[in-house]
Amino acid sequence: MTVLILTSEDDVTADMVVVHLNTAGVPVVRLDPADLTSGVALSGEYVHGAFSGHLSAAGRLVSLDGLRSVWVRRPGSAAARAAAPSAWLTEESAQALYGMLRGTPARWMNHPDAARRARHKPWQLRHAQYSGLPVPATLITTFPQAAREFAERYPDLVVKPVSGAHPQDPPRAVPTSRVAPGTDFAAVAYGPTLLQRRIAKQADVRLTAVGECLLAARKAADPDAGPESVDVRFAPSDAPWQPVQVPPRVAEAVHTYLREAELAYGAFDFAEDSDGTWWFLECNQSGQFGFVEVETGQPIARSIARWLGSPAPDERPERGAETGTPLP
Amino acid sequence: MTVLILTSEDDVTADMVVVHLNTAGVPVVRLDPADLTSGVALSGEYVHGAFSGHLSAAGRLVSLDGLRSVWVRRPGSAAARAAAPSAWLTEESAQALYGMLRGTPARWMNHPDAARRARHKPWQLRHAQYSGLPVPATLITTFPQAAREFAERYPDLVVKPVSGAHPQDPPRAVPTSRVAPGTDFAAVAYGPTLLQRRIAKQADVRLTAVGECLLAARKAADPDAGPESVDVRFAPSDAPWQPVQVPPRVAEAVHTYLREAELAYGAFDFAEDSDGTWWFLECNQSGQFGFVEVETGQPIARSIARWLGSPAPDERPERGAETGTPLP
Repeated sequence: MTVLILTSEDDVTADMVVVHLNTAGVPVVRLDPADLTSGVALSGEYVHGAFSGHLSAAGRLVSLDGLRSVWVRRPGSAAARAAAPSAWLTEESAQALYGMLRGTPARWMNHPDAARRARHKPWQLRHAQYSGLPVPATLITTFPQAAREFAERYPDLVVKPVSGAHPQDPPRAVPTSRVAPGTDFAAVAYGPTLLQRRIAKQADVRLTAVGECLLAARKAADPDAGPESVDVRFAPSDAPWQPVQVPPRVAEAVHTYLREAELAYGAFDFAEDSDGTWWFLECNQSGQFGFVEVETGQPIARSIARWLGSPAPDERPERGAETGTPLP
Repeated sequence: MTVLILTSEDDVTADMVVVHLNTAGVPVVRLDPADLTSGVALSGEYVHGAFSGHLSAAGRLVSLDGLRSVWVRRPGSAAARAAAPSAWLTEESAQALYGMLRGTPARWMNHPDAARRARHKPWQLRHAQYSGLPVPATLITTFPQAAREFAERYPDLVVKPVSGAHPQDPPRAVPTSRVAPGTDFAAVAYGPTLLQRRIAKQADVRLTAVGECLLAARKAADPDAGPESVDVRFAPSDAPWQPVQVPPRVAEAVHTYLREAELAYGAFDFAEDSDGTWWFLECNQSGQFGFVEVETGQPIARSIARWLGSPAPDERPERGAETGTPLP
């Protein structure tokens, strides 16, 4: 039983996981869908009510029925590096590849449908509430009057993108920013705006969830930082990421979040306030983890390798030969 | 409780359904996501563990909690008609709208995740097999040798797009075509190719499924048509679409297909062979139905209106006030 990793060639984070899989003797096929038709080939046959499929990459042929799990890491756009790329070839190739993989019994980290749903920030906020995580008061609106009334109730606000995406033309990142007092909200009418009560934080928390395994790290806020310093990606801080225990109520809520969202992996960002409460900011279903592992020494890559290399014993009892021991 | 219809302004098929909803006195809000920020507005607030959201269109305000169902018909790209459209505004607006709608208890025809999965042709074929529908022997491959071997086993083949999409540049339709004997399959290496055993058909069958309601229509093949005439969209035939009974085994398999695919609507295409067997060709989760309704008089629009206007009594027992009678 083989682990399939869909990612680009220069993905050092995937390299970290592959090392662990190799050490455990778990067969791995790694490919980039961008190489379809130029290095990567596929074939699937539907005959007499049954399906039989194969993938070929780097000279290796693997049966789709022999896939233990699929890790969707950082795959390129299908057939993007084909000899004659086109939007249509990309569509045809993506449908062929993912359409076949969707029909296999392999476990996914993460399944494309669960991943897509989990990217919706408005859905994340509702789902976090449902799961029992504290969510800062938030408004997403195109009504200027709704924004004004919200700002009266919660005078200390930040603004951030709804989608979490970055504008591409010109390419730039949109940091979370503090809303100045007396802001005129008329422009809200021209695009959905996400306003959120600012958490006066004493630390950022990154909780990386791999299946049932939760690994949290904490980075203390700079005590000299002003209230404008709200986005950990851009805020200067000399404090290191350090491992931290996950409070039991948070752990329970995170397990609920992931189970109901059908996610095998999630990178949660929390803001810790002066009471020690962890406020849910977001859960990135494909969040980077290399920087946390390097700073904290937490075994995230090994946990991912273990998840990918293991069968799901409760879900697939018919496969009695798989007992969690990596097969050659 | 209101029905929300997401579609473009000039959608006459949606008009047919709206007429039935109006007759039944079911409140309807119809909007095109393309009009977001210029005519359509939204707002959602996450406070104290709860969510409250609203949509406004054509001067009407509707609470998201008051949505009975959402019909995703032919929605435009979000914010496409905004004053200053951009890819980023589209992403932000789509995330805001669909992210909020995903958090409501409304029923969907069809849910975006189910719709996306159901578009994958390779998944459809596997799912049809699983559901018990006869599927013509099919190969999807980029291996020329696999294509050659398949053509030896099944000499009478058709070729069709994997995705069902149409190349856009230049825009053209790709009809299903017969594979000439002695075809050289070398070019298969440059793009996934779908080869399928040709069914010598005596009729095309369109089965429209609306919830539990199955409405089938049959169009006899032109007896003078040659074997090249394989695509009903392009084949000339004077035979009309006529209502036809659904064989019990097909009905059972179609119910399984839809239930497991979590689809409320599906337009199935079958080829009927000389034995009367219905061979599964595809299921279009957003397939047109106007032409069938006009030719056969089958009450498809009314069935859709009834599904959209009804609660799901088994799924939402807590809403005892809703007993299937349209509310004012």
